[in-house]
Amino acid sequence: MKDMTNLDQFEVGYDIPAKPGMDEADIQTPCLILDLDALERNITKMGDYAKAHGMRHRVHGKMHKSVDVAQLQERIGGAVGVCCQKVSEAEVFVRGGIKDVLVSNQVRDPAKIDRLARLPKLGSRIIVCVDDLANVADLSAAAVRHGTQLEVFVEIDCGAGRCGVTTTPAVVEIAKAVQAAENLKFTGIQAYQGAMQHLDSYEARQEKLDIAIAMVRDAVAGLKAEGIECELVSGGGTGSYYFESNSGVYNELQCGSYAFMDADYGRILDRNGKRIDQGEWENAFFILTSVMSHAKADKAIVDAGLKAQSVDSGLPVVFGRDDVEYVKCSDEHGVVSDPQGVLKVNDKLKLVPGHCDPTANVHDWYVGVRNGKVECVWPVSARGHAY
Amino acid sequence: MKDMTNLDQFEVGYDIPAKPGMDEADIQTPCLILDLDALERNITKMGDYAKAHGMRHRVHGKMHKSVDVAQLQERIGGAVGVCCQKVSEAEVFVRGGIKDVLVSNQVRDPAKIDRLARLPKLGSRIIVCVDDLANVADLSAAAVRHGTQLEVFVEIDCGAGRCGVTTTPAVVEIAKAVQAAENLKFTGIQAYQGAMQHLDSYEARQEKLDIAIAMVRDAVAGLKAEGIECELVSGGGTGSYYFESNSGVYNELQCGSYAFMDADYGRILDRNGKRIDQGEWENAFFILTSVMSHAKADKAIVDAGLKAQSVDSGLPVVFGRDDVEYVKCSDEHGVVSDPQGVLKVNDKLKLVPGHCDPTANVHDWYVGVRNGKVECVWPVSARGHAY
Repeated sequence: MKDMTNLDQFEVGYDIPAKPGMDEADIQTPCLILDLDALERNITKMGDYAKAHGMRHRVHGKMHKSVDVAQLQERIGGAVGVCCQKVSEAEVFVRGGIKDVLVSNQVRDPAKIDRLARLPKLGSRIIVCVDDLANVADLSAAAVRHGTQLEVFVEIDCGAGRCGVTTTPAVVEIAKAVQAAENLKFTGIQAYQGAMQHLDSYEARQEKLDIAIAMVRDAVAGLKAEGIECELVSGGGTGSYYFESNSGVYNELQCGSYAFMDADYGRILDRNGKRIDQGEWENAFFILTSVMSHAKADKAIVDAGLKAQSVDSGLPVVFGRDDVEYVKCSDEHGVVSDPQGVLKVNDKLKLVPGHCDPTANVHDWYVGVRNGKVECVWPVSARGHAY
Repeated sequence: MKDMTNLDQFEVGYDIPAKPGMDEADIQTPCLILDLDALERNITKMGDYAKAHGMRHRVHGKMHKSVDVAQLQERIGGAVGVCCQKVSEAEVFVRGGIKDVLVSNQVRDPAKIDRLARLPKLGSRIIVCVDDLANVADLSAAAVRHGTQLEVFVEIDCGAGRCGVTTTPAVVEIAKAVQAAENLKFTGIQAYQGAMQHLDSYEARQEKLDIAIAMVRDAVAGLKAEGIECELVSGGGTGSYYFESNSGVYNELQCGSYAFMDADYGRILDRNGKRIDQGEWENAFFILTSVMSHAKADKAIVDAGLKAQSVDSGLPVVFGRDDVEYVKCSDEHGVVSDPQGVLKVNDKLKLVPGHCDPTANVHDWYVGVRNGKVECVWPVSARGHAY
């Protein structure tokens, strides 16, 4: 494997957008940049919030896929570890020194189960989600084979409509099976309501979360009635963490996007009706792009298209400007409406992508900037690790 | 740099989905697979078409970003070289042995111009597009500095609304400047109508192409009137190549998607009203995905979401099945409607992605399969090379 921490191997412009010490103006585009001051403020703020509310914060590594960002979240944000969605991501975080890793997803393929069961040998606590009784025996057999222990969250589908069971009896049945299985430990409940995170209205989000909390409370009580304690009850995202934190039943958060922010999340409103990117969180994550053609007077063509971002949640927004607008995206081009003709060729714009997670996933590098200088270049460590 | 051709460095499941010789059933998902028989038939068919119509075929490398696919297109499809969209892509193709490379795009950043001007030293012909007089001097100075020659296409915007000039006088003005500039050679015209390629109706596409062809014919005549010959007139895509080939004015095609096919292109109709993926081209490119949860009776959750594809042109289609349907996509999950409950956990599905280019760009590897075996694993060589 290429050593992504040794930047000397990489040529700026060919396979890396910048090197530490460079002026921000010399960064090669399109690329991802992190405003390190804003990133650190976001991370510290969420860490302080979690601490003040007695919550563990297991940061969502699938958002940034970066060992460096996860380590920063542990160092200044009090994070207890990460969650991620795939075994191959977990492998990256464990190899990167993260000691408490949850695969907040089902692992069913025999080869993946085998790799998961090997991971505790590297010294990290490994937790995985289960929503099907048939999965328990496979996980147990693999852990026995490798002489390791896997911890298990039973996953509740509390509204996202994806994985997870939907009744307390189903939770109890799986928890009992886990308790009875060799080399497995029942640790608690996974209950992330992914479908409500992006609802604009605070009240609409609260309504959905009230339902989720009621389901989780019922499951915890149902387990307790059978003498089964939940060490961890985990969930919560950037659009909901205050609900879980004040629920009296969750004790672990799984926020991801708060650290970077994106255009789609930024539009949701806090309890005072204010956009969450206008006070609660700062935009710390941008696509840096350059104007590469201005052959038409009223539109600038920029070099960030579909190969530099995901537009599943809408087009990017030009940061800090209301005189120009990103209006169209094709493979390699973005069309920026420039009615007053203020942009010139080689001008740079900072774009707030529509959706941070899949946008990070098309890039190999984060360029960290502070005071006009490149301070760090971090690999998107788990990029391409989708297995 | 990691040697992407030495697969021994890579661990299956951690950083590579398969190795040659494996059974197709053992491939780790989600990943990209190529049906090598279908791919070879597509490539041969387009090569035969181009030859029969006296057209050069410069295949579009930005679609697949793969040196291996480009070499196959040269070997069995008569391709004369590639086009691509970025200098860093051109560097990958030149280093991979492609001898005739067009950057079918503007290059304006000084660092990128400098890298472009160095490329001919590696033994390949390099052509670049220009749509602005101010670019000519910069390209010339860089070529002089490196003692190389850059060839230039003047780009006409014949309907895509992105880069390119829109009048014959503007074409002539830039061509003259190129001819007068040291170390530059005027080679012809770039006129790709990207906006019409995906119109469903053959007649609607023809109407747009008639306009493009008229613009190009006028520009060629305008240049000729000034004593300037076009060696190459280049353009054409999977939805239009027959129009350019029969125009009497284009002599070079730039098709990309025909080799792989995707769901969005597949829906367009040929002159007989038949979908082009039902005879003209075959689906050779798939996302292989596995069922990872079936906790609800009527929906299967699969492991290919936004990290495994781009949904800019719509959701993927499940290949060869009408009993199940991919209905929703989130970061790591796809929801497949399974009303009859026919799918089981670990069942695999082949998805035809909505849009091949940006889907290829999120993966590191193509797994080539034939007769149930993995025959080759090819790197997506220029992935991440967006600069």
